[in-house]
Amino acid sequence: MDSRKENFHVFKSLITYNDAVEEILEKVDILGVEEIFLEKCFARIAGRDLEAKMDVPTFDRAAMDGFAVVGEETFGTSTQAPITFRLTKKGGKKIFKMGEKLAVEVMTGAPIPRETNAVVRVENAKRIGETIEIYRQVIPGENVSTRGEDVKKGELVVLKGKRIKATDIAILAACGYYKVPVMTLPKVAILSTGNEIVPPYMILEFGKVYDSNSYAIAFLVEECGGIPVIFGVVSEEKDDIMSAIIKAIKTSDVIITSGGTSVGKKDTVPEVINEMGELLFRGVNIKPGKPTCFGLINNKPVFGLPGFPVSAMISFEAFVIPALLKILGVKERRLWPKIYAKISRNIPSVLGRRDFVRVKLEYEENRSNLPYAIPVRTGGAGIISSMRTANGYVIIPENLEGITEGNVVEVYTFNPITIC
Amino acid sequence: MDSRKENFHVFKSLITYNDAVEEILEKVDILGVEEIFLEKCFARIAGRDLEAKMDVPTFDRAAMDGFAVVGEETFGTSTQAPITFRLTKKGGKKIFKMGEKLAVEVMTGAPIPRETNAVVRVENAKRIGETIEIYRQVIPGENVSTRGEDVKKGELVVLKGKRIKATDIAILAACGYYKVPVMTLPKVAILSTGNEIVPPYMILEFGKVYDSNSYAIAFLVEECGGIPVIFGVVSEEKDDIMSAIIKAIKTSDVIITSGGTSVGKKDTVPEVINEMGELLFRGVNIKPGKPTCFGLINNKPVFGLPGFPVSAMISFEAFVIPALLKILGVKERRLWPKIYAKISRNIPSVLGRRDFVRVKLEYEENRSNLPYAIPVRTGGAGIISSMRTANGYVIIPENLEGITEGNVVEVYTFNPITIC
Repeated sequence: MDSRKENFHVFKSLITYNDAVEEILEKVDILGVEEIFLEKCFARIAGRDLEAKMDVPTFDRAAMDGFAVVGEETFGTSTQAPITFRLTKKGGKKIFKMGEKLAVEVMTGAPIPRETNAVVRVENAKRIGETIEIYRQVIPGENVSTRGEDVKKGELVVLKGKRIKATDIAILAACGYYKVPVMTLPKVAILSTGNEIVPPYMILEFGKVYDSNSYAIAFLVEECGGIPVIFGVVSEEKDDIMSAIIKAIKTSDVIITSGGTSVGKKDTVPEVINEMGELLFRGVNIKPGKPTCFGLINNKPVFGLPGFPVSAMISFEAFVIPALLKILGVKERRLWPKIYAKISRNIPSVLGRRDFVRVKLEYEENRSNLPYAIPVRTGGAGIISSMRTANGYVIIPENLEGITEGNVVEVYTFNPITIC
Repeated sequence: MDSRKENFHVFKSLITYNDAVEEILEKVDILGVEEIFLEKCFARIAGRDLEAKMDVPTFDRAAMDGFAVVGEETFGTSTQAPITFRLTKKGGKKIFKMGEKLAVEVMTGAPIPRETNAVVRVENAKRIGETIEIYRQVIPGENVSTRGEDVKKGELVVLKGKRIKATDIAILAACGYYKVPVMTLPKVAILSTGNEIVPPYMILEFGKVYDSNSYAIAFLVEECGGIPVIFGVVSEEKDDIMSAIIKAIKTSDVIITSGGTSVGKKDTVPEVINEMGELLFRGVNIKPGKPTCFGLINNKPVFGLPGFPVSAMISFEAFVIPALLKILGVKERRLWPKIYAKISRNIPSVLGRRDFVRVKLEYEENRSNLPYAIPVRTGGAGIISSMRTANGYVIIPENLEGITEGNVVEVYTFNPITIC
């Protein structure tokens, strides 16, 4: 009898990466939209298209300290032959007529009188009693910010599904938003399974391993914009996993487990999903991350990530981030930037499998070309250090047997990185 | 009489950018170090060098499902001429001697018996009763993660002053950290000054402008890792600014005002700093952001940023970020990555002044070269849109009269951006 059949489950058939992600994305959607105060918008996603509620600026205003005038009346002036204007008070006589040569002192940002159209900068004029001499002509519009120059009422200023930035906040405030509709954040329950796993605040007995996945996953969930809730370590017994999931599902929108998804004897997570809900796939043709499984329990997405830290993190990148971003209403499927680079050496791969190759980015001395993507020595999916050395990963798709040295590749970064 | 003297203060002398930053950095320091739980470490900075508390892995473990053996005893085996090993139980007889040909079934991640040194993968063996036939030789170390392979006890795993990443969390957890010393976060008070400024929840009368700086600055403070506290809008009257600062300084580590720093009549912030504490500089030879001032009140740093939104944000980038990062114990002086690019056209500048030129990044069609940095049309420091179009900025230093088209420049990004 084949020992494989007797002792180990094997993955009957591996789903492709694209099919797996499609399956996931079909099953998840945004949770809702809520209004929050402007000052709470950090790291939030716009819940709908946001239009300017008014013109910004809301009036024609001085862009410089100086004197508002009718620009045409300054034409021809110079240091040698300055033209004299009569100063009038702000809030005083409002009717400027061509030929009257009136000027109003204005500070930067202040409205200019309706009849004026330009501002003479303070350094180009000299006050003499109730008049000023102007030494430099200004054309109509000069040193003036006109109404609506920044944004016009009704203009789209932030698109639905976009992460709100500091400059968005500035423009939203400027056009009168003080509450902003944003996407509801998912609460994400995190469980680690495995009889050998213990929480890091316990004594470590021989053969046991500290739970690192819960903490790394919680961090990644927070980075995506979700709210992580660590449910801790659960044994490999089916009943224990089931009762942990029952507890977690009450208060969470998404459940992530790690461990217990491979083909070993005690890999019970996929079976638990299958019994409690619907197991949608188990085993994906990728490396690392193959033992990932996914399903629904009470209509809530449940991810079973592999137990090895590197596999768990790559699997999070590959499957959970696209899902969380869709739940958050974001159109992009990746959190961090991609960067173009040249691969530093041949990397072999296997046809039909998608490889996530961890790379480090390095510029040549003169920095005038694309940086190099240098594959990182991995030492297996249990070795966290390989993830720490890498700046990101390169994908070798299913239809390639590898990448050839010097080819331009897309590097998906793990972080916003500085490459020097 | 020169109108400038009568009506406006002028900046007597502008300090250089480097002198200004040096002045600031001399006056600020970390607030302290505190221990927090591992799961709270998101976006925190390591408060000291963190060493591995133990080897990871803590024991030699199987990197694959299969059978632990003495590797040398498998030498010469093949599908045609398999070598037979006797299975022994885990937890059973522990003494393996050369020549005994014993094997122990192991799951991925489990300790291998002390006397073994390699794991035969399950697919390279066949179980026959209490024995297995091995079809492929394994060299010592094969399919085994040896103790300390990931990190060795005492090895530095996170450096003091580094932002903790997901992979750091994983390794810290793996080697037994459950509390982590991190830098104390600064509380940052934010005030907007100006008689024309009103909070965005009020009705906007003619000539008034909504406060956008408070919200944009609060966002940027949060992005840096500080805790923003919005103190709202204050009039330009000296007494009002003073009492707001007295209130703010009681509960905050840093104070940021915007507005009231230019050379207009009512620019009272620098005078207030001067009266309440020590004004260290006022006016920097940069563009935009010239009217920035800085001082100390009760030994706490007070930044007076310009009122115009773009100037305020660039000034924040240029002065506040380096300060907040130093307070947070971070060695870097910028938050986001810099990217190399080629400037798309000549940009003129003024000798002696440092210019922050906002640019947009774009790759050529084939993406095989550095991206282009394309200067963004600004329309003045009041126009927020120019910041929203830009991906970052290029610095033209004091000793250059501009940058020449095609030159390689460093682009300091406003965000972690994807350039496609």
